[in-house]
Amino acid sequence: MKKYKILFQPYNKEIEAKEGTTLIRAAMESQIHINASCGGEGVCGKCRVIIEKGKVDDGISEQLDAEDINKGIRLACRIKIKDKLCVRIPIESEIDAKILNTDFGKRKNAKIKEENFEILKKRGGFIKPVEKKYVEIPPPNAQDNIPDISRLINHLKTEYGETEPELSVLKEAPDILRETDFKVTVSMIKPVRKKRKTKIVKIQPGNTESENYGIAIDIGTTTIYLQIIDLNTGNVLAQYGDFNRQISYGEDVISRIVFAEKGGLNKLSEVVLATINKLIKKAIKKANISEENITVVTIAGNTVMTHLLLQLNPRYIRRSPYVPAATILPPFKATQIGIELKDYTTALIYPGVSSYVGGDIIAGVMGAGMYLAEELTLFIDIGTNAEIVIGNKEWFACAACSAGPAFEGGGIKFGMRAAKGAIENFSVNPATFEPMILTIGDVKPKGICGSGLITIIAEMFLAKIINGRGKFDKTLNTKRIRENNGIHEYVLAWADQTQINKDITLTEIDIENLIRAKGAIYSGAMTLLNEVGLSVSDLDRIIIAGGFGSFIDLEKATIIGLLPEIDTEKVTFIGNGSLLGAKICSLNNNIRKDVVKVTKMMTNFELSETVSYMDNYTAALFLPHTDINLFPNLKKKMAKPKKKQT
Amino acid sequence: MKKYKILFQPYNKEIEAKEGTTLIRAAMESQIHINASCGGEGVCGKCRVIIEKGKVDDGISEQLDAEDINKGIRLACRIKIKDKLCVRIPIESEIDAKILNTDFGKRKNAKIKEENFEILKKRGGFIKPVEKKYVEIPPPNAQDNIPDISRLINHLKTEYGETEPELSVLKEAPDILRETDFKVTVSMIKPVRKKRKTKIVKIQPGNTESENYGIAIDIGTTTIYLQIIDLNTGNVLAQYGDFNRQISYGEDVISRIVFAEKGGLNKLSEVVLATINKLIKKAIKKANISEENITVVTIAGNTVMTHLLLQLNPRYIRRSPYVPAATILPPFKATQIGIELKDYTTALIYPGVSSYVGGDIIAGVMGAGMYLAEELTLFIDIGTNAEIVIGNKEWFACAACSAGPAFEGGGIKFGMRAAKGAIENFSVNPATFEPMILTIGDVKPKGICGSGLITIIAEMFLAKIINGRGKFDKTLNTKRIRENNGIHEYVLAWADQTQINKDITLTEIDIENLIRAKGAIYSGAMTLLNEVGLSVSDLDRIIIAGGFGSFIDLEKATIIGLLPEIDTEKVTFIGNGSLLGAKICSLNNNIRKDVVKVTKMMTNFELSETVSYMDNYTAALFLPHTDINLFPNLKKKMAKPKKKQT
Repeated sequence: MKKYKILFQPYNKEIEAKEGTTLIRAAMESQIHINASCGGEGVCGKCRVIIEKGKVDDGISEQLDAEDINKGIRLACRIKIKDKLCVRIPIESEIDAKILNTDFGKRKNAKIKEENFEILKKRGGFIKPVEKKYVEIPPPNAQDNIPDISRLINHLKTEYGETEPELSVLKEAPDILRETDFKVTVSMIKPVRKKRKTKIVKIQPGNTESENYGIAIDIGTTTIYLQIIDLNTGNVLAQYGDFNRQISYGEDVISRIVFAEKGGLNKLSEVVLATINKLIKKAIKKANISEENITVVTIAGNTVMTHLLLQLNPRYIRRSPYVPAATILPPFKATQIGIELKDYTTALIYPGVSSYVGGDIIAGVMGAGMYLAEELTLFIDIGTNAEIVIGNKEWFACAACSAGPAFEGGGIKFGMRAAKGAIENFSVNPATFEPMILTIGDVKPKGICGSGLITIIAEMFLAKIINGRGKFDKTLNTKRIRENNGIHEYVLAWADQTQINKDITLTEIDIENLIRAKGAIYSGAMTLLNEVGLSVSDLDRIIIAGGFGSFIDLEKATIIGLLPEIDTEKVTFIGNGSLLGAKICSLNNNIRKDVVKVTKMMTNFELSETVSYMDNYTAALFLPHTDINLFPNLKKKMAKPKKKQT
Repeated sequence: MKKYKILFQPYNKEIEAKEGTTLIRAAMESQIHINASCGGEGVCGKCRVIIEKGKVDDGISEQLDAEDINKGIRLACRIKIKDKLCVRIPIESEIDAKILNTDFGKRKNAKIKEENFEILKKRGGFIKPVEKKYVEIPPPNAQDNIPDISRLINHLKTEYGETEPELSVLKEAPDILRETDFKVTVSMIKPVRKKRKTKIVKIQPGNTESENYGIAIDIGTTTIYLQIIDLNTGNVLAQYGDFNRQISYGEDVISRIVFAEKGGLNKLSEVVLATINKLIKKAIKKANISEENITVVTIAGNTVMTHLLLQLNPRYIRRSPYVPAATILPPFKATQIGIELKDYTTALIYPGVSSYVGGDIIAGVMGAGMYLAEELTLFIDIGTNAEIVIGNKEWFACAACSAGPAFEGGGIKFGMRAAKGAIENFSVNPATFEPMILTIGDVKPKGICGSGLITIIAEMFLAKIINGRGKFDKTLNTKRIRENNGIHEYVLAWADQTQINKDITLTEIDIENLIRAKGAIYSGAMTLLNEVGLSVSDLDRIIIAGGFGSFIDLEKATIIGLLPEIDTEKVTFIGNGSLLGAKICSLNNNIRKDVVKVTKMMTNFELSETVSYMDNYTAALFLPHTDINLFPNLKKKMAKPKKKQT
């Protein structure tokens, strides 16, 4: 079969591709990222590329307008390779991981960090999953020549009971023991239950007790974060994040399952591991520690991410009755699941509850200490899927609802993730209807991120540019509101003020998508509260988790009806709850034991099977809600006359 | 570096070897076998080859006589390659595995087989290490959509308590469950101790409970045997044996340790695994079973064999105070230790006691049921190293002694292993001193095997051709006794009646070596008896194990003083005790638990550290013993006048 050379710009990376392969697949196989929300099915219109050289027959679709087409823009998923090409990936298709490595979650985080130590203290302090113990063993002699390993096991018996060595320890023991005059540090995996065997996984010369490190990893659908933790002090020595490279194969969990079903399971596992392994290497370097002394990796992710990581069949997760392969997972060797650390490093994976309430949520619940608290808490992790947990140390109920990708830029004409150039703050002059926009990184705008979208819509609603149904007031005297191909939109930034040389607009379809997303979450939380016989006023706390959640302006979120009106003092943002929970588990084996207890305490509600959910959802498809009395403060505010800005 | 082609005959195998490599090393690296007892050190003189073409400078040593040299015979370890060669490996350097696959252990074996079933019955019958359980699980529905694995685990809970799945099971469960309407067979590794977790290692569609097979493997220093066992019935479905290819790297355990220390550990592991894996393939084919249904492999071997298999450092085994790396070993996956079976097949390795009393001996003790018996039993495994165990169900004492390789043909001028052409039976005309010889396979003789050697020397001693000191009566009128290079020898077969076209003789040095070997074993057993305050008359039973042991003529062994005089009814031959023990353990998990108990019950005596051993040994360096009163029957017999044969 014939092959053609394809040069990708701006990376200047040349690959070879078989004739007839789609351009997007060729890019994927060479690890070149092009946005694609629909897994390459040709419906999302995100995979725009500019064909700078070479012949293509196809690549045109209704998602492209005449201007796009004139500029040479095509959809990569529609192009079958039949010529040598030079392809440019436009700026809005790139992803920028830099934003992930800024400390975005500062707000109110300090408080939770103190609470972490409270949680640890309550569960006995630092009780590492893998314990290091320095021992000085009497050497053998003619009267006492039992095998080296028996000697070691006998020495440990009083303190650790029966221990069992790994094969690698059997191999290295004789020389290490003799080289160090039988003074070594033994690394042992402690079982969470007594009666189970403690495993000896490593022996090191001399005393290395003070060097015992863990890695906490949060595998999100969109982003991956990890931290290196000193397990003796709880200190974070390094933290890195990056986009989950699986994005190239679909933006949400459903499109990834679809890709996995088509034979892509191994590929998805491979790319997420590539990201994790790259981050681990960076973090080890930054933390300036030896890989030798990393004893444990704790991973939290949603159920689909966990399945894809472990190459578990995710097929039945997206089909009624939504059954995952497994949510409670045994400990693995890190290498067994493809993580490039030493063979004796243990990998612990957070258990989940169901197909849509996964280990990331349980990790958040653990990290926030909800399971130790008296207070009745509503925990919401906001993302493409929103997960909701209600409860306290006595009981838990949970549910998941599909918010859709609006908060992450999906289904929004100029939507993008929170990255440089994303509009994140907005206000509008109530007289002239002219906007003031601020972007992440203070550069020319490229698009709108999720938190920006909430703010824009909230501000426009308050300014009555948008009504409760999410429609523009077409009577207003402004050029910014216009009709474009039959769809009304508001021009946030004119083409010459943008990075993309196009007008950046907010359309009524965008608003509709946002209302659906916020409606799903609000009604999910209300349905779950109702199901357990409670209401908003019973709540002592709301905890908002999720990278996206950290950016939300609480007031604006209430205005659009994403969150109920509640005393802001009762609301806590914990940022990445999944990462926090992974960290907490690395530090305390009792909490690891608690985790399984918590997953077993959880009553999972399938909202799609809950009768009242659809009614609640429909009622929430309004700004802020069809029943404005649920938002009394807002009602009062809206009743006031508009102030004129001078 | 220059390379030369070397053609090996009779295999017609051509290899390439670097200039300067020794010929023996080049052969080894190409898996061509040439006998070498000394690991290539140039002292044993076994690695004779005929240089048919090509120039060699060296290869001559004092082990070769003028005739050898004229014939082109050289020692392969002394030849440094500097030319293209054609090399013939002479007949006496080959090994022949055919003999291993005849049912040599028939004698009295039936009895032990019945006893095996007695042992199993006493310990609860067939309790497999890996149990297969057919289950029909109610499928999920909207009200009950817990994960597949949780569903399976919950279903098994009543019968099996908490179970933990392997990663591979998590991977395959969703599809298999649905393809079979949730009717599957679950394979579970049962822990030997309650409270430990049962592991789910495999699920198979439908009901496969009736197909559950094990492989029992005996890894001997010289030979490897294995059996495929139906774990539901105990039937042996196939049995194969072969020489341990490690022989090419040294005939005894010490020379293998030396080779391992020189960087050959991985090589030794590789070749033993190659032999095992080849035998497994053959046996699976013969038994006509599916590899899918082999759930467990049970391996018994001496401590050095176990170390080499697992690539454990054997260095300190041969150095005082003789400390092995490990003798009690955790269960492994078969694949983890290099055995080519399914990833879920478990490998159990017999625990040993010390550097020289290994898993093979414990297996023999278990297989013979000694640990369940009231009777005081002396167990001897006769080989290059002889291991001795005394005890009953209350207590055990053990010791090992180095007999040297005489019984396997080492140190005997025409010594060879029990293979086709080996003299195995002998009698002598007391008047003419002419011999009658029988060989294995009834062919022209090639050499003398161990049991043949015992018979020859016993017969000659009875005929007074040899005296108590092992010297020939030089006054006898026979051409067969002659002096050759200062050493007296008896010609067993003239050159023209042999396969090797040389006179096959028994020399006084051979006799001396045999006396040392038998003396070591006899005095070992007596020392151990003395140490525990017992004597021969206290023994209820003697059990003789070992492939070689099976060939021994009990009467002849007593005549030379290898074994004490005891009622022959009390003596049992169990053949390959190691294989028998491996089999027994595959069939019953309680016995597996007993094994560790037995190893812990054993008191190990280091004979080299036992003061009386040297005195006992010196006293035993005589035919049958310096104290003839220990052999009253023989004393009586020898007192009778010689009968003349007509």
